[in-house]
Amino acid sequence: MFQLVLLSNQQHIDVGNLLLSAELMGLPKDIPISVQQTCLIGGKQTGSRLITLTVGDSIVRVVPTRGMAVLDVVRRDKTGKDVRFGWDSPVKDVVHPSFINQEASGGIGWLDGFNEMVVRCGYQWAGHPGQDGDEFLTLHGRIQNTPADEVILDVEQVPPYRVTLRGRVDEKRFKFTNFELQTVLSLTPDEPYLLVEDTLTNKGSYPREYQAIYHNNFAQPILEKGAQLHVPIAELSPFNDYAAGGLGDWNQMPAPTKDFDEMVFNIRPLSDEKGFSHALLHNANASYGIEVSYQTDTLPVLTVWKNTDTLEQGYVVGIEPGTSFAYNRSYQRNLGLVPTIEAGESKHFVVRFGLLTDEDQIKNSVTNIAQLQSTQTAKVLSTPIVRLGEA
Amino acid sequence: MFQLVLLSNQQHIDVGNLLLSAELMGLPKDIPISVQQTCLIGGKQTGSRLITLTVGDSIVRVVPTRGMAVLDVVRRDKTGKDVRFGWDSPVKDVVHPSFINQEASGGIGWLDGFNEMVVRCGYQWAGHPGQDGDEFLTLHGRIQNTPADEVILDVEQVPPYRVTLRGRVDEKRFKFTNFELQTVLSLTPDEPYLLVEDTLTNKGSYPREYQAIYHNNFAQPILEKGAQLHVPIAELSPFNDYAAGGLGDWNQMPAPTKDFDEMVFNIRPLSDEKGFSHALLHNANASYGIEVSYQTDTLPVLTVWKNTDTLEQGYVVGIEPGTSFAYNRSYQRNLGLVPTIEAGESKHFVVRFGLLTDEDQIKNSVTNIAQLQSTQTAKVLSTPIVRLGEA
Amino acid sequence: MFQLVLLSNQQHIDVGNLLLSAELMGLPKDIPISVQQTCLIGGKQTGSRLITLTVGDSIVRVVPTRGMAVLDVVRRDKTGKDVRFGWDSPVKDVVHPSFINQEASGGIGWLDGFNEMVVRCGYQWAGHPGQDGDEFLTLHGRIQNTPADEVILDVEQVPPYRVTLRGRVDEKRFKFTNFELQTVLSLTPDEPYLLVEDTLTNKGSYPREYQAIYHNNFAQPILEKGAQLHVPIAELSPFNDYAAGGLGDWNQMPAPTKDFDEMVFNIRPLSDEKGFSHALLHNANASYGIEVSYQTDTLPVLTVWKNTDTLEQGYVVGIEPGTSFAYNRSYQRNLGLVPTIEAGESKHFVVRFGLLTDEDQIKNSVTNIAQLQSTQTAKVLSTPIVRLGEA
Repeated sequence: MFQLVLLSNQQHIDVGNLLLSAELMGLPKDIPISVQQTCLIGGKQTGSRLITLTVGDSIVRVVPTRGMAVLDVVRRDKTGKDVRFGWDSPVKDVVHPSFINQEASGGIGWLDGFNEMVVRCGYQWAGHPGQDGDEFLTLHGRIQNTPADEVILDVEQVPPYRVTLRGRVDEKRFKFTNFELQTVLSLTPDEPYLLVEDTLTNKGSYPREYQAIYHNNFAQPILEKGAQLHVPIAELSPFNDYAAGGLGDWNQMPAPTKDFDEMVFNIRPLSDEKGFSHALLHNANASYGIEVSYQTDTLPVLTVWKNTDTLEQGYVVGIEPGTSFAYNRSYQRNLGLVPTIEAGESKHFVVRFGLLTDEDQIKNSVTNIAQLQSTQTAKVLSTPIVRLGEA
Repeated sequence: MFQLVLLSNQQHIDVGNLLLSAELMGLPKDIPISVQQTCLIGGKQTGSRLITLTVGDSIVRVVPTRGMAVLDVVRRDKTGKDVRFGWDSPVKDVVHPSFINQEASGGIGWLDGFNEMVVRCGYQWAGHPGQDGDEFLTLHGRIQNTPADEVILDVEQVPPYRVTLRGRVDEKRFKFTNFELQTVLSLTPDEPYLLVEDTLTNKGSYPREYQAIYHNNFAQPILEKGAQLHVPIAELSPFNDYAAGGLGDWNQMPAPTKDFDEMVFNIRPLSDEKGFSHALLHNANASYGIEVSYQTDTLPVLTVWKNTDTLEQGYVVGIEPGTSFAYNRSYQRNLGLVPTIEAGESKHFVVRFGLLTDEDQIKNSVTNIAQLQSTQTAKVLSTPIVRLGEA
Repeated sequence: MFQLVLLSNQQHIDVGNLLLSAELMGLPKDIPISVQQTCLIGGKQTGSRLITLTVGDSIVRVVPTRGMAVLDVVRRDKTGKDVRFGWDSPVKDVVHPSFINQEASGGIGWLDGFNEMVVRCGYQWAGHPGQDGDEFLTLHGRIQNTPADEVILDVEQVPPYRVTLRGRVDEKRFKFTNFELQTVLSLTPDEPYLLVEDTLTNKGSYPREYQAIYHNNFAQPILEKGAQLHVPIAELSPFNDYAAGGLGDWNQMPAPTKDFDEMVFNIRPLSDEKGFSHALLHNANASYGIEVSYQTDTLPVLTVWKNTDTLEQGYVVGIEPGTSFAYNRSYQRNLGLVPTIEAGESKHFVVRFGLLTDEDQIKNSVTNIAQLQSTQTAKVLSTPIVRLGEA
């Protein structure tokens, strides 16, 4: 096993700019693995780091300074064409947390840095900003604007040459929160999968409420007019009245559409015998797709964020497994979607991204999801389960 | 043309401490131009940068990390004496934005870093903090606490050897704001002018309100007892009741005065055939002066900020062309002072600073302004145009 | 005198990682003094600095980037065992101020970085968050999240080889605050004392209210079941109703206790002929103790913060001399605990920490405090002096 500590308070290691070839990692020369770290500069990304993992046909960019977010993935298809998984936010900088004030403008400062493919929301809370009892909650919690520590790369030196990148992200406030998140991201040269396995531990002495939403975002070339979303559904409901008007074609994607803004759909998904559910977004001719698979014991619900506005505004669809929907926490206790983590307890969140660039993979995924759905008819509610303003 | 990229995310260039002589820039040895960049240290200026342009008799200090602010200018007069344009704020550090929390203490955290000669207020909003409908606006907007990117120096290698410093400052928030500001600052060895030409572009798909105030601040040796302000006025009004009491000698400057605090005057200025208006502040014997010239199509109003309190508190006068007065945005829609920038549109702001160190220059400027005024009698309102508290 | 400037804006000096032996400081080789500075890395401590002073049997760790806080002290006792003065907060990082948003969650963001032995609260305000007239005050003021400048080490080259570390911390806001704090920390190889001498100067032209609390925090091995606090008391009162229930054994320390949370006691202390009061916390068998001595002219009151909850939550007792108690400022004007500092005035705060590791020292301290108490009977109020909610 090749191991490189990229950042460690404990070991007092801070690797800056770095480029590692397969050979330097003790791998056979022809194994297509390389690792790069770049210290970003300019504007609000001063202080940010970017780790680029090239593993087989996939290039994954991870932002350790933003809670180990995945900025994007590019995967080469069999014709040699690069397919990008991620999206184009108007926010171009990889914004360093020191420039983010989440309290800004009524708690939406989080939006100043929002541009990644995998964005963790949580873990004290997730969801929309607003008052919850005595507490004012800012949009989507604090984890994404927290720099990681103990960032460690492991590369197996024998097949399947799994590449693993870990990082610890602390969410701590004296008396209130004592959470540690161990993030683990891995992939192999031979498989079209990116695996995220996170462990949240409550290091405090008291049980605490928590929430998590994996805000995974995708755009062109997968998202386009005619792109389609497949989800095995127990129950589907519109997030609000605006989304209620879009229930008819909620899983059909339009071209970039001025004034579309966003429609959000709440889903209670069906899962397979292994405890996983799967959501697939594929392009119009079903040649490219992203399959988001997730363990439903800890991530029981799915938010679909259909933000098919113009390209300049950020044409994007979110496929977001979570403990909770995107409502402010105050609305979700009644829905049973504000779980508790006991003192010393750990919660595991597993999300696997299928980076599908071939029609057969997509057919299989469609079939798989259809089969799950075949066991049960989707219940579709025509009105929101939450009346906003009535917490 | 000599070009040096000082900071560029795109080109991955970050020049740190730097000292460039004329020769190193390929200029004839006797051309009095040099450029320095310093990485500041200590206290809240850790992370700040300072660029010093020495061009002929002028030394201009620019802060790229604070939105390309001009910290101050020193210009040698013909007797060899240095005249400073700028002021002495109690805030001595060039504060890095990561130490500023604009939401602090009811939205006045901006004041923790306020000490420059040219301070941009904007561009989503400018003016006093407070609620505007659903939005809470912090004092004077966010641009000044945003570090620039793509900071580029150009020096012409032939007369007039114009030195140009550009920097891009982004003001972005997903769904809300997609502004890019291109700042351009230039001067030549032979002329007593510093030219600021900014271009604001709305990169989003929707029209947005915007505001800009160029908060230009000046003190000794220009500001002193007997210093005088000349402004060609269509309409003058006091900002509030306190300023109403100072209308009689609004343009006559007192010595530093305990408990003076600030009087603010709103001016709708007259402009010349080229679309420029000019405001001149000169010292008691009219030997030194600052002339602020600005294009009134995009900067139609002028705020005069007479803050002639004690030296320790910051004895200073602001000459501030803007889209708007200093009121909270909520008051200014009725005044027609909250313009809109269309999707894809650019707005240009031109402000020229005349760094006058000789009596003839000042006489000319006084004459010029008097001539503008001669076409029209200034209308003076004795009461504020806005009743504060009644948005 | 050996002098080393570790950080200075004025002299443009920024020493990074550093290790200085006695010899390098021009001291006789056998003098047990050494100095280290470490640039911290990882998570939210990126940008933080740590200065370690080894002076005789004491090792003091100071955080210049957090207002010259003392992280902790370790002192070797005569048997060679290390005794730690300080505590174990759930917050492990030495958090850099750029990651702190004091406005967060109703003004308690300060808690995100709270883990030192000596934490300064002030100086515009200290105490609990909340509205005070027009101003919203965040928890315990801003000084602790302000990086120092002009950090200078002095080491005497003759007995008693006093080691002094100074740092200036500015608290400035245009129009509102123009405070400069000169912190001075010193110790000698032969004495078990750490001396903190701070000078607050109002550089502005107007008198200002100010507050200071030296939030000194201690835990194991001094704090344990049976540990005892000795304080010479003029008046003792419970901070709130919960503390009122703990008056009976307010100075007896329990083992870490689940659900204890915190009890806070307000003390108006007695002082000796030199104007000092002394508070002693010693362990169960009175072999280790911390003696906090402080000048009561500027620090007239003492807060005892009995936070003997579980180890994971932060088992800790605070011995906190101050201008004021821990209530929001709005409650303290009526108590006469919101002093004013005149324009140009300086206030001196002296706190001496006795790092007691031997029974005789502790006996002496107990005797000394008992003697002070013998002159006057402690007045114990059974109900709080402030009715919370009634500012």
